[in-house]
Formats: sequence, structure tokens, C-alpha cells
Amino acid sequence: MAVDWGGLLMNPGVVSATDYTSVASINIFVALLCACIVIGHLLEEHRWINESITALVIGLCTGCVILLTTQGKSSHILVFSEDLFFIYVLPPIIFNAGFQVKKKQFFHNFMTIMLFGAVGTLISFIIISLGAIGLFQKLDIGALEIGDYLAIGAIFSATDSVCTLQVLNQDETPLLYSLVFGEGVVNDATSVVLFHAIQNFDLIHIDAIVVLKFVGNFLYLFFTSTLLGAIAGLLSAYIIKKLYFGRHSTDREVALMILMAYLSYMVAELLDLSGILTVFFCGILMSHYTWHNVTEKSRITTKHAFATLSFIAEVFLFLYVGMDALDIEKWRSVSNSPGKSVSVSSILLGLVFVGRAAFVFPLSAVSNWRKKSPDEKITFKQQVTIWWAGLMRGAVSIALAYNQFTSFGDTEERGNAFLITSTITVVLFSTIVFGLITKPLVGFLLPPSTTGHLSSVTLSFTSEPSSPPRSYLSMLLGFGQESQVEEQTVPPPPPPDLRMLLTAPSRSVHHYWRKFDDKFMRPVFGGRGFVPFVPGSPTERSLHPCQPFKSEPEGDNPPPLSPVPGTS
Amino acid sequence: MAVDWGGLLMNPGVVSATDYTSVASINIFVALLCACIVIGHLLEEHRWINESITALVIGLCTGCVILLTTQGKSSHILVFSEDLFFIYVLPPIIFNAGFQVKKKQFFHNFMTIMLFGAVGTLISFIIISLGAIGLFQKLDIGALEIGDYLAIGAIFSATDSVCTLQVLNQDETPLLYSLVFGEGVVNDATSVVLFHAIQNFDLIHIDAIVVLKFVGNFLYLFFTSTLLGAIAGLLSAYIIKKLYFGRHSTDREVALMILMAYLSYMVAELLDLSGILTVFFCGILMSHYTWHNVTEKSRITTKHAFATLSFIAEVFLFLYVGMDALDIEKWRSVSNSPGKSVSVSSILLGLVFVGRAAFVFPLSAVSNWRKKSPDEKITFKQQVTIWWAGLMRGAVSIALAYNQFTSFGDTEERGNAFLITSTITVVLFSTIVFGLITKPLVGFLLPPSTTGHLSSVTLSFTSEPSSPPRSYLSMLLGFGQESQVEEQTVPPPPPPDLRMLLTAPSRSVHHYWRKFDDKFMRPVFGGRGFVPFVPGSPTERSLHPCQPFKSEPEGDNPPPLSPVPGTS
Repeated sequence: MAVDWGGLLMNPGVVSATDYTSVASINIFVALLCACIVIGHLLEEHRWINESITALVIGLCTGCVILLTTQGKSSHILVFSEDLFFIYVLPPIIFNAGFQVKKKQFFHNFMTIMLFGAVGTLISFIIISLGAIGLFQKLDIGALEIGDYLAIGAIFSATDSVCTLQVLNQDETPLLYSLVFGEGVVNDATSVVLFHAIQNFDLIHIDAIVVLKFVGNFLYLFFTSTLLGAIAGLLSAYIIKKLYFGRHSTDREVALMILMAYLSYMVAELLDLSGILTVFFCGILMSHYTWHNVTEKSRITTKHAFATLSFIAEVFLFLYVGMDALDIEKWRSVSNSPGKSVSVSSILLGLVFVGRAAFVFPLSAVSNWRKKSPDEKITFKQQVTIWWAGLMRGAVSIALAYNQFTSFGDTEERGNAFLITSTITVVLFSTIVFGLITKPLVGFLLPPSTTGHLSSVTLSFTSEPSSPPRSYLSMLLGFGQESQVEEQTVPPPPPPDLRMLLTAPSRSVHHYWRKFDDKFMRPVFGGRGFVPFVPGSPTERSLHPCQPFKSEPEGDNPPPLSPVPGTS
Repeated sequence: MAVDWGGLLMNPGVVSATDYTSVASINIFVALLCACIVIGHLLEEHRWINESITALVIGLCTGCVILLTTQGKSSHILVFSEDLFFIYVLPPIIFNAGFQVKKKQFFHNFMTIMLFGAVGTLISFIIISLGAIGLFQKLDIGALEIGDYLAIGAIFSATDSVCTLQVLNQDETPLLYSLVFGEGVVNDATSVVLFHAIQNFDLIHIDAIVVLKFVGNFLYLFFTSTLLGAIAGLLSAYIIKKLYFGRHSTDREVALMILMAYLSYMVAELLDLSGILTVFFCGILMSHYTWHNVTEKSRITTKHAFATLSFIAEVFLFLYVGMDALDIEKWRSVSNSPGKSVSVSSILLGLVFVGRAAFVFPLSAVSNWRKKSPDEKITFKQQVTIWWAGLMRGAVSIALAYNQFTSFGDTEERGNAFLITSTITVVLFSTIVFGLITKPLVGFLLPPSTTGHLSSVTLSFTSEPSSPPRSYLSMLLGFGQESQVEEQTVPPPPPPDLRMLLTAPSRSVHHYWRKFDDKFMRPVFGGRGFVPFVPGSPTERSLHPCQPFKSEPEGDNPPPLSPVPGTS
């Protein structure tokens, strides 16, 4: 998908008029962002009223105020721009997701994540498309083509897992967190790739060859995008490792990391690949190699600066969606048939429910069938949580809906207007209502004692295996004992089978990858263990008294902040 | 000056076309930014080939390549947009300038800086305007009104001190650095305020009342802008101090600082004040109060993240100016009279020389007359350095010239075309040629031994007086002795009169300000010494073995990076 950045930012004919209104609207927006942050901070005890909901509600309220002050005329203070979203807002969010992901967890559960994210999204896409074809034709909401129905499938397959992730705790439920998180990113990428594949293909004549081409195109996009991200990440690691021998220059290092990451996204867009996947894998590789090649100051700076950028982008996004939802022009065309509008939204919500259930439970069974350890299996309650986590629809859906159903801001056509407004309704409803229910639901499904047990088992199983194999056993045992000590304070669960934990990963792809990584990749691209020894700052250590793996011979600095992933 | 941010970023009717060219141009641009950073790093030994010149030359080369590949047709890949400059690029640069400024130095030399920055710029403005009126009328370059001539004065009074600052060393020549740096920022603000005052006033009928109103307006803008920046900075400090008592949340703190700073700039633009001054003073207050209220991680992150943003913006800017300089359309109108174009540029360069000399030397005399200590006086060689430092013209000049002499991208009118191309010529010539000469010149004027002496004196005199008066004496004496020890390795200079050093600042405004600050401001807004004691990280201390003021009772953490200002 290519985007009109030039039109947005470098338009040669930009009128530098004294546009009071636009400056005013920026001011309102930035002030609202500040308000969201402050209110979000004050509401932090209520973890189920998360920042997304706050921003969405503040956006809606502001939209109301603007609508009232302009007497219902202008609500065009801010209109959702797909380009703005895909060029400015999405890249930092996805990059940060890759940068902060617990790589060990992510790669250990890689197959399951891909199963859910790619195959699951395809199943959901097929069900929602078929359901829409079946149900909408009775409603008479205007002329929709086959491409539109398929687009609906792709639009409503794109989940927004941010809300659930804010409820799940990465340290308490690492397996679940990693599945929901990983699925969310892969799902975004899959939906966008699907969507653009639909737009590019001639879908009037569907036959076996078209379907095969479609699948081939999809796989091609998937792998080339990943490869491009990996190349960008490795290139940045290599350049910074080479430059590091000269002088330290924190600002240059940080600047280069930001620019290389953004470049990877834009190159992917240029080559019509999936920028989301590219920048996600670029983030993973940067945190695995590049991040370890920079100075300690740069490490702290990048970690927090990327998280901050992503945070601002997320709040901005929900605020934006909230304000845009009240854009009166979109609602004008559907206002004479409110019942039909409600029906469309309800049908779509129902399809989202069914489409998600249709892959979460079967694919969980597939995943459990593959796993041998009972601790690795996904329990039914966890399956329900995964199912629920993916019910929220967010900005990706809105952006795709705008792309499909508006052309040059035109929502006059009946069918298009219905689908735009329904998308907004589904997004608002699912984010706010489901978002509010999520916390109690997760609390009910996964009470603290269970999650505490799960966490210790899964953590001891998958975390920190980046040292040479000879110390792996001792580390694992050491940590296993530690987790057992912890477990004595919670109701006694069945003790984890340590032998299983020892044998399982050694057979996994992950294990061979680490061997390859240690032998070939790290000597070239740096990363943990190949940076000249710098004594770790005792402050940082004192912040993390429970850092378990001090015995590593390479002795690189421990991660600056333990609750934030991406350092291990 | 209000700006069309909305038009740039939130245009409701933005066409989300698959614009291959614009994505390609972003890619080229980001890749070039990376190249500039890497090449700048490799050239760092040659401090006189600084990043600005590298970026400018790379920009010019790229412009040539584009011109050749499109066979002279299109050079519109990137055209300088005033809005882009004033909305995205300038705020981070100016904010970072305020954030990283050595406040003690800045405020100690405040009167001299204001003298050079405000009065000096006015003198330069008058001379360049009068010179242009006198000399251009003989050249017959098209119809120019009195407003145009005054605008020329304002445009060419805006200096670009970045090049010289990259050569001067803040630790070696703190007085000079502080003067050049402070003057640069105040000068930018003065020129922009002047320029907009010229545009807003009816300048056909100039009489005493108009002049008085003009001066009144100028002073009003100056003080309200400063006040607004101060309010924004204090507000951020207050909010973060209050929130700090709850939880630590690094990302929120950093996000809030960024957003509040940007908000101050945009509010100033909204109220038609000078955003430059506002964001500069906001930066100063944030580094004085807010920065001390946040967590240690946030401190490191903000310091480096702001520096990185400013760094990227600067490189971007010079690259942009370099590429835009080859825009063929601008040169078309003047291509049939190259001699006249050269004359206009030469006259402007000459006026820049004269206009700057006309205030640097007289005002230095005024400043020296006020000072009693011989060490505080500005020597003739330093005066020459200050004069030279302000000869470069940069992006502010280009942005203002575009604002005045283009309307809707139209440079067809002869006079306008001449002035646009001459501005570009002056900027390129001064940045590259003067920039290359600066290093040898500064080396000749201020040989290391002299600067070494100057530095120790001025440092012991002005740095770090933020502790209560009782420890001031011991600190000063301690450091005075240290500097004398250092001086034994260089040719013996006259020893600084310590009694003078002790008496002079106590009478200054700065001294009373500090008393007020300690008694009223810090208890409310936080800042150094009022944050709950956090043991300083020994790593940071070990990085700065020469940190002189360990004896401070407040014992807040020493600044993370000693070469970077803004922490004292």
C-alpha cells in the first residue's frame, strides 16, 4: 500500500495561509493529548479503564462540544486520514511492539502465534465475508460488489488487542500475553496484506488459478516483508557496531536507529510489501542485535523514547477515532434508517464473535495436539481469554474501511455510508463495552493463583536462554528452584516436570537458531555478549535484585528496566 | 505567525492515492539522512567539516542527480515548505537549544546576550534595509516596495550560528559559546518577530506613531512570548511533581514533557506571538524544574531524545535546503541576467558583513564598559569571532524569504525571483565557504592556551551556583584552586582576581533570582534539591571524575553527560 506522504508533507503548492482554525485545532488536539495522559495516570488504579478508553471517551466528548459550539454545522475539525494513520501513527506503534517483545517467548510460541495470526485470520476473514454476503442481501443497504464483501471480511478480521494487553500482565501470564500480543501483530499484518491483495486482484472471475495466485501473493508478501525487516535490522546493527569502534555519539546512534526503522517501513511501502511486518521484524532484530551495540545511555534512551512515541501514537489514535466518530456528514446518509444501521452493526458484531470463535477453539486444539507437556497446552479458560482478546476492533479496521468505502471523502453512496458508520459503531462499541468487561472477565477466568503458577512455569521454561548451552542447565535449575520457592506462598499446584522442560526446547527450532546465532550472527552483528565489557551500572542492578542470570560469562549489562520486555 | 498545520496534516480531503513518487521521495530522503549521519560520523575528526556542510553538500549532489535523471525537467521532488519548517523542524531545534543551554552561563551573560540579540539585530536590520534601498534601485531588478526592503533587512538579519557553535567548545570557551549561542536564539526570535511586525503594519505611511506602535508591538511580543514559555514550563513542572507522588511512569513523563513543549509553541503561534521565544524559554524552565522532577530514566531519555530530535531536524534542514537550492523554476527567471543575480547576492553578502560589524564592535564596547573585571570583558579577538559567527545565513532566512517573495509557489515576478535566488546563494555560500573558514579562523584567533585560560576563569566564575550561599564560597574557592593548578601547564596568565569573582555575581540580578528561586519557586515547582533524595548512580559519577561540586548538600544526581549543557 503506497501512501501520499508527499501530499501530506511536501506538497509544493502548500498554501502558507494564516489559517487560524488549523492552528487552533492542533492546539486543541495537543492539549487533549496532555489531558488524556494526566487523566490516564490518575485512573491507573482502575486498570480496566485503560488509556484507550479514556482517550476514546475524551475524543467523543470533545467531538460533542465542537458539534454543539458550531451548532451542528462543522464537525470537520479533524477527519480521519488513512495516510496520517499508516505513515505517522502506525509505524511507531508496530516498531515498538517488535522492539519490546519478549523475543524468547515470541519465538518459542512462534508456530502457535502464526497459526492464530495467519491461519486464524484467514478463517475469520472467510466466515465474515460469507456471513456478510448471506445476511446483507436481505437488508437492501445498497449495491455492494463481491470485492466489497471480501473487504468487509478483511476489515473486520483486524483485531485491536491493545485493551486486553493492558489487562494481561506479561510477568503473570507470559504464555497468554505472548500469544495475544503476537497474534495481534501478525493479525494486523495479515489483514492489511489480505485487504490489499483483494484490492489488487480482479475478483469478478474467481477460479482456482486466481485463488492460487492469491495465496502465492500472500505468502510472497509475508516472507519478503519479514526478510526486508530482518535485513534492515541487521544492517543497522552492522553499521552501528562498526561505527562504535570509533567514538561514542549517543545522538547519532539513536537517530540512526529511528531512521533505519522508519526507512524499512517506507521501503516496504515503496515495494508494495507489508510495512507492518517489516517494521515489526526490524524492531525484533534491532532489539536483539543493534540495541546491544550502542552505549548504555542510548539503550535507556531508545527503550523509553520508542515506548513514548508508541504511547503518544496510541493515545493520539484513540482520541482521533473518538473525535472523528461524530463527523456529522457520515451519519447524514444513514440517519433516515436508523434501524437498518443498527442491524448492520449488530450483524457485523455477531460475525466478529462467530468468526473468532471459529478459529480460536479449533486451532487451540491443533496447537495442544502438537504439544506434549501439559503445561504448554492452552487450557479452555485461556482459549476463552484469547477469543475475547481479539473481539475488539480498532484503528486498523477504520483505516481500511475508509480506504475501501470512501473515495475523496465521499460517503454519499448508501452502501458505503452504512459500512463506514457501522465500522465506527463496531469499533466504539467493542472498544468501550468489551474493554470495560475485559478486566472482570480475565479476573474471573484466570484468578491470580492460577496465573501465578502459569507464569513461573512458563518463565522458567522460556526466558533468558541466550547464554551458551553449558550454563543453560544450571540457569534453568536455579530459576526453577526459585519459582518453586515462590509457589509455596500460593495454593500448591502440580509441580512442573523439570525433565520435560529440559528436553523440550532442545529439540525446538529455537534451540538450533540460538546455536546459529551464537556461532555466526553475533560475531558479525554484535548483540549481547559481543560488546566490549562495560561494567554494569550498580544502580541498575539494585533496581533488579531478582535478576536471575548473573552467572553469564559474557557479563553484558542487565536490561535497564525489568518490567519492559525486549531486553532479554 | 500562524501556520497551516491542518492543511499539511489533517486535510479532510486528502487523496489517499497510490502515489509512488512521493513514497519514493520519502525513501530517498530518509536514506540520505542516514547517509549524512554515517558520513558525518566518519568525518568527525575534521571538526571544520561539520554535519551542516555535509548535509548541504549531499543535498546539492542529490539535487544534481535528480536534475540529471529527470533531464532537467523535474526538480520538484522536494520544495522548501515554510510550514514544514516552522511547524515540524524548528520547534525541536529551538526547544533543545533552551533545554540544553547552560543556564548559569546564559543568565549570567543575559544582558550582553540581549544587547547583541535584540539591539544588535535591530541595528543590522536597519543597515541592511537602508543599504538595500540605496543599492538595489540602481540595479533595476523589478518593482520592490518599502515593505520588501524592510523584509530584506529582517531576512538577512537572521543568523545561523550552528556552524560556529560546532567549532567552538562549550567547555573551552564558555563565555564566547554562551554569547554566540544565546545571541543566535534571541536573534532568530527577533528577526521573526520583526518580520511579522513588518508584514502586519501598514508601512506606506511611516510616521512617529507607527514607529512607536511598532516598537511597542515588538516589546509586547517579546515579553508575552517569554512569559508564555515560562508558564508552560512551570505548569509541566507542577503537574509532573504532583503526579510523581503517585507512581513512576517514565513514558508518561517523557510524553508529557514533549507535548507540553510543543503545546507552548503552538499556543504562541495561535496567539500570534513568537513561538521561537516561547519554546526556548519553555525549554529553559523545563530543564531547570521539570527535568529534576522526573525519574532518572526519564532524565537520560529526555536529554538524549530531545538532542536526537534536534539533531535529526538540523540535518534534515540542511539536506532540504541543499536539495531545494537546485529547484530549476526559481532560477529560470534570473537565468537571462546572471550578472545582475551575482550583483544582488554580492550586495547582500556585503550588507551582511557591514550590518554585523556595525553592532558587534560598538555593542562589545558598551558591554565592556559595563563590566569591571578584565576577565569579563570581550577581547578584540573574541569580538571578531562573534562577528564571524553571525555571518552565516540559514534556514530561517530561507523560510522568511519564501514567505515574503513567493505567493502560492509563484516566483515568476522578476524582483521576487531575484531575491529568492539571492537568498539561496547567500545561504549556500555563507554556510559552505564561511563554514569551512571558521575552524582555521577560530584556531588562529583563539589558540588553545588562551581559550584554556579563559575557560577556567569563566567556568569558576559562573558555573553551578545553584546551592545555598553558604557553600558558594567554598565551592568557588575550591574550583578556583583547581583551575590554577591546571593553568600551571599553560603559559602563565595573570591570575584571576578572586575577590572580584566573589563580589561581582553577588550584586547581579542572577544572585537575587537564585535567592527567590530557592525560597519560593523550588518548593512549588520542584527542581534540583527538592526531589526526594535518590542515590546518584555511581556509573554516572565514574563517567565524570572531574565533577567539581560534590559537596552540595542537596545531593541530587549529577548531570548524566558532562559535555551536554542544561543539567547545571
